[in-house]
Amino acid sequence: MTKPRNDNFLRALLKEPTDHTPLWLMRQAGRYLPEYRETRLRAGDFLTLCRSPDMACEATLQPIARYNLDAAILFSDILTIPDAMGLGLRFETGEGPRFERPLREEWAINDLSAPDPFDHLRYVMDAVAAARKALDNAVPLIGFSGSPFTLACYMVEGGGSRDFRHLKSLLYSRPDLLHRILAVNAQAVTAYLNAQIESGAQAVMLFDTWGGALTEAAYAEFSLAYMRQILAGLHRIREGARIPAIVFTKGGGLWLEQIAASGADGVGLDWTIDLGAARRRVGEKVALQGNLDPGVLFAPPEIIATEARKVLEAFGPGNTGHVFNLGHGISQFTPPEHVAALVETVHGYRRQA
Amino acid sequence: MTKPRNDNFLRALLKEPTDHTPLWLMRQAGRYLPEYRETRLRAGDFLTLCRSPDMACEATLQPIARYNLDAAILFSDILTIPDAMGLGLRFETGEGPRFERPLREEWAINDLSAPDPFDHLRYVMDAVAAARKALDNAVPLIGFSGSPFTLACYMVEGGGSRDFRHLKSLLYSRPDLLHRILAVNAQAVTAYLNAQIESGAQAVMLFDTWGGALTEAAYAEFSLAYMRQILAGLHRIREGARIPAIVFTKGGGLWLEQIAASGADGVGLDWTIDLGAARRRVGEKVALQGNLDPGVLFAPPEIIATEARKVLEAFGPGNTGHVFNLGHGISQFTPPEHVAALVETVHGYRRQA
Repeated sequence: MTKPRNDNFLRALLKEPTDHTPLWLMRQAGRYLPEYRETRLRAGDFLTLCRSPDMACEATLQPIARYNLDAAILFSDILTIPDAMGLGLRFETGEGPRFERPLREEWAINDLSAPDPFDHLRYVMDAVAAARKALDNAVPLIGFSGSPFTLACYMVEGGGSRDFRHLKSLLYSRPDLLHRILAVNAQAVTAYLNAQIESGAQAVMLFDTWGGALTEAAYAEFSLAYMRQILAGLHRIREGARIPAIVFTKGGGLWLEQIAASGADGVGLDWTIDLGAARRRVGEKVALQGNLDPGVLFAPPEIIATEARKVLEAFGPGNTGHVFNLGHGISQFTPPEHVAALVETVHGYRRQA
Repeated sequence: MTKPRNDNFLRALLKEPTDHTPLWLMRQAGRYLPEYRETRLRAGDFLTLCRSPDMACEATLQPIARYNLDAAILFSDILTIPDAMGLGLRFETGEGPRFERPLREEWAINDLSAPDPFDHLRYVMDAVAAARKALDNAVPLIGFSGSPFTLACYMVEGGGSRDFRHLKSLLYSRPDLLHRILAVNAQAVTAYLNAQIESGAQAVMLFDTWGGALTEAAYAEFSLAYMRQILAGLHRIREGARIPAIVFTKGGGLWLEQIAASGADGVGLDWTIDLGAARRRVGEKVALQGNLDPGVLFAPPEIIATEARKVLEAFGPGNTGHVFNLGHGISQFTPPEHVAALVETVHGYRRQA
């Protein structure tokens, strides 16, 4: 494929030397940007925005136009797959996502099937193609999906949850039914990410937002196993180039060795783990992505610079294998000019060889 | 002091041999019990219940009357201290705790002072004394407090939070002000726990519910340091007996070695860490308390038995140093008969020497 003019992000994930430490920010296209809020207002509601390839493309490009970021990530929602499965996604103001038909009955679980990404999720593929074209090879485009387990959490609970009561009931009482959901989800996510790759995504990422709510044994069985299956089923070469894959389990620091052995090129880390300790634990196996506390971006620019440098120094010497990011999505309350200070600090930092 | 007839809990914390693995459950006095809901209804509202020594004593004893648990924990709320500091605690239905006057202004932070536990918190000490008397030395009584950092989270945010925006702003922008709050909190918690010990508590526990939201460096500086200070200031001998202290940081598994070196006798663990791995990491330094996923209690009794035995087996051989508990508070949706199945399993389990 035509290499992006700035391919530092791809090189870092493949553990090749980079000119500077590349960075992008989880949820970089979103509510903290006034231009995003304007697009969102024009769309009327969040789902209309997600489903419009033109507006999703516009939102994808907004942070790239404003900052010197090293990658763009598709603007979309992690719940597009269960929505396409017919669960009836809605967003209520201040409530977060809700499914009209949460998945709790055995018959409904047995009826579940993976949607064809080029049919019900065509709008996502169109947005990928549009964003890739609009980026004009400036920086790589990242495609993404929720992990099978994280999707199952929303599908079974019917929305966000603090205790995952319904999910845990199913997991401990009827693990066979949860495995059935996860198997369908894994098949759906594999097809979805491969379709994004075919449509132009140059890297892919699995967001396992809720895997950290499990025990070590349950994480291995109900989350990691299915991510491993997806990673094995991805089309990793496209247009002659390697498509790197990143796995991010929030709260997964205790299980880092297992995650690093999943087949991913990069492992995303939240801010609770020291980046240097993480690097020592995974060795040369994978690249690491992270892990500034998103709360740092509430502080003044000079403090942002100090804290960002601490993360860069914690990773240690060697200009390879580190993609700078936050440890979780950027807050909607972040002042946009604070992001500029972060980008400048990371790009200005020179590592020791 | 007159030893409790069942002192297995105290012995396990002091790493002395026990007859069986002792257990109690975080939030064991609470909403999943119909008799508690009856008391709560009689009180009218939650704060009236907390502030009535008679009714708080009644709630403390309810789980002991129903189950063969090895310890009672005082029924109270972790926000009694900031309430006594004048922040104006309220509980709104379905909303959780709210402070009328969250702590955000420099002058208010400078004005903060530690309340005298025998004055503004007299009702807590009266409840401790009443519960100790009512228990009649059947099992030990545990006193508790929120950690300085966890109290600060609520005080600064004004209630629960998902991103701790105000707290993180303060932590990164004005660490001096956060340290000022934490210093006052540490002084207040030390006096509060010592007063509980003086009033009859036979063990004490620090609940650090939100320490796991920090980076490793910030956890050491803003949470653990103040807990260490408290542990050093506790009156650990009372009526000739050692008063064991437990520290529980939810999400603190990555920092276990540091927590084990804090001066606590026991370390509480959430369910995300394998108990055997935790034991190997701390060696003989401390006892461990935990760590069944509270979600297991939604499953049928035979599955509860299997999962509880997995926790007991993960700890490994040697009848000392393990207090069985959940990895977090029991859910209000737990069927009470499921707790009976758990108690029976843990007490019936015989460890290999």
